[in-house]
Amino acid sequence: MFSPLIDKLISALRVLPGVGPKSAQRMALQLLEHQREGAARLAQALVAALDAVDRCKSCRTLSEDDECSICRNPRRDASQLCIVESPADVLAIEQAASFSGKYFVLLGRLSPIDGLGPKEIGMDILERRLQEDEVKEVIIATNPTVEGEATSHYIADLAKSRSIKVSRIAHGVPLGGELEYLDGGTLAHALSSRREL
Amino acid sequence: MFSPLIDKLISALRVLPGVGPKSAQRMALQLLEHQREGAARLAQALVAALDAVDRCKSCRTLSEDDECSICRNPRRDASQLCIVESPADVLAIEQAASFSGKYFVLLGRLSPIDGLGPKEIGMDILERRLQEDEVKEVIIATNPTVEGEATSHYIADLAKSRSIKVSRIAHGVPLGGELEYLDGGTLAHALSSRREL
Repeated sequence: MFSPLIDKLISALRVLPGVGPKSAQRMALQLLEHQREGAARLAQALVAALDAVDRCKSCRTLSEDDECSICRNPRRDASQLCIVESPADVLAIEQAASFSGKYFVLLGRLSPIDGLGPKEIGMDILERRLQEDEVKEVIIATNPTVEGEATSHYIADLAKSRSIKVSRIAHGVPLGGELEYLDGGTLAHALSSRREL
Repeated sequence: MFSPLIDKLISALRVLPGVGPKSAQRMALQLLEHQREGAARLAQALVAALDAVDRCKSCRTLSEDDECSICRNPRRDASQLCIVESPADVLAIEQAASFSGKYFVLLGRLSPIDGLGPKEIGMDILERRLQEDEVKEVIIATNPTVEGEATSHYIADLAKSRSIKVSRIAHGVPLGGELEYLDGGTLAHALSSRREL
């Protein structure tokens, strides 16, 4: 209906997560009508990031440097290694600001049905790190989904076989949460993981 | 927090309408982790559209051609001219598929507070069209907002001064709508515009 280049832009915008046909159309027209400078900046930023950003060689997070800023930082405690699924999880934990160790980012989780085996989520790199590094504790912070739990078990076995201490972040009632609105699974977990006072 | 190029991509994505800091972060990581091809295609589509897409010289809609496909179409009835605010409105009316005339796209509405005067919304081009063309009826389909109504009045005066018939699309209860959930303004309008049966 629109001219071919506009149609192409609309369908290219659908690659963004959560953007359907209507939003893509709104975005394309908004960019072309009112935000041409911003759109040009977006195109440049995309090209620059695609060109330079790759995985950090030691923790696999996304970074334009060979080794990311956290891995390079000598003040971070290399004896604690926190394992997360995505770079966004690193950010979330950094913002909570109570962890001073290093990270390992899976960029996914074990999910054979999607073709994600141990190699795809970097288990070979993790094994090498556990062998070489002075890691004393592995903290597993994968998401509490079925795949996240499976990944967690796999990593726990890997670490235990090297006699490295393994822990899993706690699951239970979130602060400020109300019991009556909580799902049964979380509540059952909170009960079975109760701590003596 | 992320590396500079990723941060730049995140802030560049905020130019998209309805995208806040969290969604921009999610989009950037999703593109870099899983959608690199799609992201490259998006960058190309942006550059191509920004480069080629401009306003149609006779109706001001966005098009990569000098004159858009509707203006070029000899089967469209040039005696009816429908005036809308944006290219998306053209699409909406075309999809309703009951109009065979031509369009004029304001790409905005009269809004002195935003610096949008008659010239910015193409009133000079519209005047020229009304003078030269064989337009017999002007159908005003601006949005029923304060600015849309002001724009409508301005255009109506313009057309009447050239003794061209002017009409405004009807406002009232939408099909399938329920009176009890309708706002008072629409309902008042529907009552005062009632038609005899």
